[in-house]
Amino acid sequence: MPVNLTVPDPASLHPVPGIRLGIASAGIKKPGRRDITLIELVPGSRVAGVFTQNRFCAAPVSLCRERLAAGSDIRALVINTGNANAGTGEEGLARARQTCEVVASMMGLKPENVLPFSTGVILEPLPVDKILPALPAAKEDLSPGHWCEAAHAIMTTDIVAKGASRQIQLGSRTVTVTGIAKGSGMIHPNMATMLGFVATDATVSQSLLNQLVKEVADVSFNCVTVDGDTSTNDSFILIATGQAGNAELVDAASADYIALKAALSEVSIQLAQAMARDGEGATKFMTITVEGGRDHAECKQIAYAIARSPLVKTAFFASDPNLGRILAAIGYAGVPDLDVNAIRVWLGDVLVAEHGGRAASYTEAKGAAVTKEAEITVRVALNRGRANATVWTCDFSYDYVKINAEYRT
Amino acid sequence: MPVNLTVPDPASLHPVPGIRLGIASAGIKKPGRRDITLIELVPGSRVAGVFTQNRFCAAPVSLCRERLAAGSDIRALVINTGNANAGTGEEGLARARQTCEVVASMMGLKPENVLPFSTGVILEPLPVDKILPALPAAKEDLSPGHWCEAAHAIMTTDIVAKGASRQIQLGSRTVTVTGIAKGSGMIHPNMATMLGFVATDATVSQSLLNQLVKEVADVSFNCVTVDGDTSTNDSFILIATGQAGNAELVDAASADYIALKAALSEVSIQLAQAMARDGEGATKFMTITVEGGRDHAECKQIAYAIARSPLVKTAFFASDPNLGRILAAIGYAGVPDLDVNAIRVWLGDVLVAEHGGRAASYTEAKGAAVTKEAEITVRVALNRGRANATVWTCDFSYDYVKINAEYRT
Repeated sequence: MPVNLTVPDPASLHPVPGIRLGIASAGIKKPGRRDITLIELVPGSRVAGVFTQNRFCAAPVSLCRERLAAGSDIRALVINTGNANAGTGEEGLARARQTCEVVASMMGLKPENVLPFSTGVILEPLPVDKILPALPAAKEDLSPGHWCEAAHAIMTTDIVAKGASRQIQLGSRTVTVTGIAKGSGMIHPNMATMLGFVATDATVSQSLLNQLVKEVADVSFNCVTVDGDTSTNDSFILIATGQAGNAELVDAASADYIALKAALSEVSIQLAQAMARDGEGATKFMTITVEGGRDHAECKQIAYAIARSPLVKTAFFASDPNLGRILAAIGYAGVPDLDVNAIRVWLGDVLVAEHGGRAASYTEAKGAAVTKEAEITVRVALNRGRANATVWTCDFSYDYVKINAEYRT
Repeated sequence: MPVNLTVPDPASLHPVPGIRLGIASAGIKKPGRRDITLIELVPGSRVAGVFTQNRFCAAPVSLCRERLAAGSDIRALVINTGNANAGTGEEGLARARQTCEVVASMMGLKPENVLPFSTGVILEPLPVDKILPALPAAKEDLSPGHWCEAAHAIMTTDIVAKGASRQIQLGSRTVTVTGIAKGSGMIHPNMATMLGFVATDATVSQSLLNQLVKEVADVSFNCVTVDGDTSTNDSFILIATGQAGNAELVDAASADYIALKAALSEVSIQLAQAMARDGEGATKFMTITVEGGRDHAECKQIAYAIARSPLVKTAFFASDPNLGRILAAIGYAGVPDLDVNAIRVWLGDVLVAEHGGRAASYTEAKGAAVTKEAEITVRVALNRGRANATVWTCDFSYDYVKINAEYRT
């Protein structure tokens, strides 16, 4: 069951001026399932994205990269679940293009104004015969208030829909940031089986938006892992509609930029954490922090070694403070010249290891008191520098195996 | 249940002239459990070893490294299960030394003639109060014929004891190679929670033996993964007692060296595969072969990405030919400039993917016929070079979670 995660209250997801969302049912995987989402952007909107590093990237990812790189004027996003359109070769590309063409013709746009997204099973042909007839209904459904419905429509094995929203003041203007995401398995950065769409009505220059999408992804979606598998389809899209009326943000050192980045990061972190809280079979939410490293990269490397260790994750599932597995993961993370005698490890506030072994003050009862909770923090101090990194993950339960063994049945 | 793996027939494990083994019960984890193994080597034996790359290496690993590097004359090995003596700091080293001292005094040796090995739970103090009193009984039990008993005594979560044996002719001399190993979880190379002891009565120079242990490990124990976790205690020891009467092997190009290496590799591969066959919760044995790569390293990188993917492993547990997960793992393995359109993938003899997508000739029924078997081969052709690599692993089942959630209870 998802860990401390509830369906967002629709009223909590503020509409973003300049954006309308429409949902429809194509019945791709199950009859009647609302599996098509259309997002319409007002003219003048700017869009930036980061995508999976997987070499077997999906056809829609290729198209998104191509269109964003070409500086296309993006006016619509079309998202289907139930089929990833990945590992589908030239035919998959043709079908993604065809979907965009139909959206474009329906909305009076050019195909290159449309970005496609798919998530679901890999290596099966995209069922355009089901998708294309459903698009007009999605257009009919367009509404500024449909963020929560869209959060539901993009789910795959997610149990809980994921949405987050903030409002901030930029000078005299109220600026909204609202986002939705999906993802619960095959979650590992750069990136995860995740789709994330975060929009603001702020006016931001294209070059700054391109920078923002990377900076925000690095502190949010690129800090979460469920099972270490990096998917073929991951996409994180940042949209700035420019409807708030603020002066265009062009300076990364300005207070307004910093304030907007903070709000975007908060929303994205909430969405990213929601993916770990709703990780397949999750019963625990874990925060792994590594500090005192020489640089961010080595801190993250150790944090991920702990976060993706099946042995650590099954121990936490059992509420077992099996600290040895944490030490082992630190040890095999591959960080050179690591002096294990200088490392200290805490479980929650309990010092569990120092001087290369168990802390003298540690007792099993203290450790067990931490691990029985639904939220567990592991903190590792390397004592060799000033960098740090944090990663979020979940435990590894019977249900993870069940969900993934039965995914296609 | 272990996949096509049965307890070795004691008669199949040929004694190695110059070696005696004795077992005793210290009751470290469970009262009455036979958990102490003593291996006595005839004077003049040569020993070489490779050990875990984990920075949090166990105390006995540190001692073994130190004594082998110093060129100590090794005359005895002492192995306990139930406690890894890892993450135990200076006190752990002192206890490992103390164990060796008692063995040495009992056998008329110096402490540096003894190598210690431990496997079991990490971060708990080695219970020397239980181990030391049990050592005399292990000495009393010493016998050339106790290989099978030793294979049982070094088990932890293993279900089936692991032993293998060969005899070859070197000139007019019959040479024996016999080995035992343990390991079934926290199995990932460089190395695994594994202990492997392979002995021969051949006469081999020390420098050639040092080379042999690395070459043999690279084609056997370093080709297996269960869960990607590299343990703190892994040790692979090669012993040459020099009792066979062959002319000392000093030339790595000689036919005799090549014959001996082949026999040692066969025994070690059988033991390494046995670890995957007996992988925690295993229901399938998988062989992942990647060929046509630019070098061995990139082939191994891709083979391991497939072999350690929880998504691939849970799909195989379900006998589900979810090929997309294999393609995704190839794609995120991190090999640069990979042209996915040039890759071909087979499941058993069935071509499943080419041209970046599913093979036209592929049907779900053909794939399912392969994945319902207990032994599954995945073959990937990269078509960009002549190198190849093979990795063995097992699937990921409910029982993996159960075994590791309940390990300490």
